Amino acid sequence: MHINLDALYGSLTIKTNAKLALIVLDGLGDIALPSQNYLTPLEAASTPNLDKLAKQSAQGRLIPVAPGITPGSGPGHLGLFGYDPLEFQVGRGVIEALGLDVDLKAGDVAARANFCTLNDKKIVTDRRAGRIATEVTQDLCALLSKRIKKIGDTEVIIKPGKGHRFVVVFRGKGLEGPLTDADPNREGLPIPVCKPTNAKSAKQKKAAKLIGDFYKQALPILAGKHPANAFLMRGIAHQPDIPCFDERYQLRAACIAVYPMYKGLAQLVGMKKIEGMETIADQFKRYVAEYDNYDYFFIHYKYTDMYGEDGNFEAKKKAIEDFDAALPIFLSKRPDVIAITGDHSTPCAIKGHSWHPQPVLLNSACSGTDKLERFTETGANIGSLGVFESKYLIRLMQANAKMFDKFGA
Amino acid sequence: MHINLDALYGSLTIKTNAKLALIVLDGLGDIALPSQNYLTPLEAASTPNLDKLAKQSAQGRLIPVAPGITPGSGPGHLGLFGYDPLEFQVGRGVIEALGLDVDLKAGDVAARANFCTLNDKKIVTDRRAGRIATEVTQDLCALLSKRIKKIGDTEVIIKPGKGHRFVVVFRGKGLEGPLTDADPNREGLPIPVCKPTNAKSAKQKKAAKLIGDFYKQALPILAGKHPANAFLMRGIAHQPDIPCFDERYQLRAACIAVYPMYKGLAQLVGMKKIEGMETIADQFKRYVAEYDNYDYFFIHYKYTDMYGEDGNFEAKKKAIEDFDAALPIFLSKRPDVIAITGDHSTPCAIKGHSWHPQPVLLNSACSGTDKLERFTETGANIGSLGVFESKYLIRLMQANAKMFDKFGA
Repeated sequence: MHINLDALYGSLTIKTNAKLALIVLDGLGDIALPSQNYLTPLEAASTPNLDKLAKQSAQGRLIPVAPGITPGSGPGHLGLFGYDPLEFQVGRGVIEALGLDVDLKAGDVAARANFCTLNDKKIVTDRRAGRIATEVTQDLCALLSKRIKKIGDTEVIIKPGKGHRFVVVFRGKGLEGPLTDADPNREGLPIPVCKPTNAKSAKQKKAAKLIGDFYKQALPILAGKHPANAFLMRGIAHQPDIPCFDERYQLRAACIAVYPMYKGLAQLVGMKKIEGMETIADQFKRYVAEYDNYDYFFIHYKYTDMYGEDGNFEAKKKAIEDFDAALPIFLSKRPDVIAITGDHSTPCAIKGHSWHPQPVLLNSACSGTDKLERFTETGANIGSLGVFESKYLIRLMQANAKMFDKFGA
Repeated sequence: MHINLDALYGSLTIKTNAKLALIVLDGLGDIALPSQNYLTPLEAASTPNLDKLAKQSAQGRLIPVAPGITPGSGPGHLGLFGYDPLEFQVGRGVIEALGLDVDLKAGDVAARANFCTLNDKKIVTDRRAGRIATEVTQDLCALLSKRIKKIGDTEVIIKPGKGHRFVVVFRGKGLEGPLTDADPNREGLPIPVCKPTNAKSAKQKKAAKLIGDFYKQALPILAGKHPANAFLMRGIAHQPDIPCFDERYQLRAACIAVYPMYKGLAQLVGMKKIEGMETIADQFKRYVAEYDNYDYFFIHYKYTDMYGEDGNFEAKKKAIEDFDAALPIFLSKRPDVIAITGDHSTPCAIKGHSWHPQPVLLNSACSGTDKLERFTETGANIGSLGVFESKYLIRLMQANAKMFDKFGA
């Protein structure tokens, strides 16, 4: 028997005046190793403000997707927003476009693209066109944008990224992904024709034809350029249809993030983007200023992940300390429910995202306290929330906001 | 929405050169009781080598099947091998045949059987034929084997077990279980005719007819014998079609076990059996010798379960100490990922398998450490792995071996 738990939660939801805040320290979770004096950056950091909060809070650990699975930022955040990342899969093209600050609309089809080199027999000889500089990619994208604005009734948006990378977004009627890659995935082969993944989908067929037409128009424009005389397209997908956050949870939601990717992910579920901040102190000030205008605040802090990816333990620790120093601004306008966690772990020793469950702290008048002196991975292991999937966090936040009716008599 | 998680794991799997080892101390888990000075055998044992390993490892607890469910050895091990024991159910006849070292082939139908006594009205008067000695059963099985080698195109394999027990395996084309028991399950009734459980299955019909024919040929051979002039057959099932371990996980797997049952279970999923060892020290030496030939080693230690079943706390504790003493041989050729656990708990106080989650220790360069001084049930309760279903253990082992691509961008 299959139970739709989201429908159940929805049926029990009561609109209240409660304020909820989710603070994501990106890639917060880490692992303790003998070489790190058996400490994680969170354990090594001096965090007087988090410590004070921890004493009044419950803790636990979150599994981003499923045991052993390392998530990208997309699945990591969708889980925290309460959308099962296995049910709501967002294509790489869409994520890439969001990361480049493309204002995606429902139904847009987006592709990750990168310049490459073809020989005169149309064989890919360098999949990255000698890793051309960002400025060269910007010039080439500007050239393509100028010459190809529309194909039939479909608008074409071309946006340069870093190095040889760019994205192409097709905005028109009746389009759908995912499509197969226009990328041989190795050198020595021609660029394959992009095809529907579902042969029965008329929308995918239309999108695939569009990609073909785009190649027909774009390749002659690049002919003779060296080394970037062609391009590859991958992860071609449409913006998925995701139930709107505000309706799903009865919460007016705002995103207080600095980096485009996270603003994009919030926008994907319909959160309102709040713009124009740089530091976490700015972000917390803005939260205070916007307190009355929303019910749910998603506040994103990037630097824990960034230094984890670098494998820089001291910098990750310092990023946590910087965060902690700004926390009193946030606490000056304390919401009813606070959750502080990561979207996944980014252990310094791994220099990348990982599958290790990230610690979570939950605070409200009825969260109870786990009597823990600090918020750490080791403390979270013995917290009252246990180890659970990220997608349930928002349900616990709603419960703490007294937003659920009793189930059954 | 139903997500096939195994398909997802499969799609993310990368073949690597990593070495993984699963060490099963059968029935390891236990319960602390006031009468045991509040200790489990694992807690009471002196385990200097496990202690050293524990300091560098993560811990948690495994639910073999589902909360409160006590597994047999079959489900216990299938879970550890990553096969959902609810999805892959193996009939008791198959398990019994494996335990008696029958080299089962795909499609074989196997039955647990035991000699019984019928009166002249063909009523079962003793379901166990007065619990005849093993030697008597061996003689009777030899007699039946000599007279019944084939029925039609189907080979019949009869193998004696302990006391009045034996197994019958039917090896032929187009056979399938499960069938209803040829056993009234109490005395005072005749032996019921064995029937298909699915009336639409032609293969089950053929198998049921075969059982009927077997009775027709076998009962006259036993007529006049006393007290064992007939037999009952139960748990009649075919060897299930289980996805091959090597392909499912991209790991060449070897089984280093001593007892037939565990070798049989490993063989069921397609592991290679390594033969000819007696002690755990032998087994570890053999692991070292075979290190280069496989990627995954299943090493099985029986005595923790055996003494748990006896209710012998001191002997179970001693079995753990013997295991610990041999552990340095294993660690002399350290694999990339080590998991040490049980297939279930066998608490001395229960004198049998139980549902209590068994402790698990996981060690790799990226397992992190839970800063625990020892590997114990109590320590495992506060470990970073939490409490989770056995079937995910191999996924965590694969993650620790860096065998999974990132999920989503």
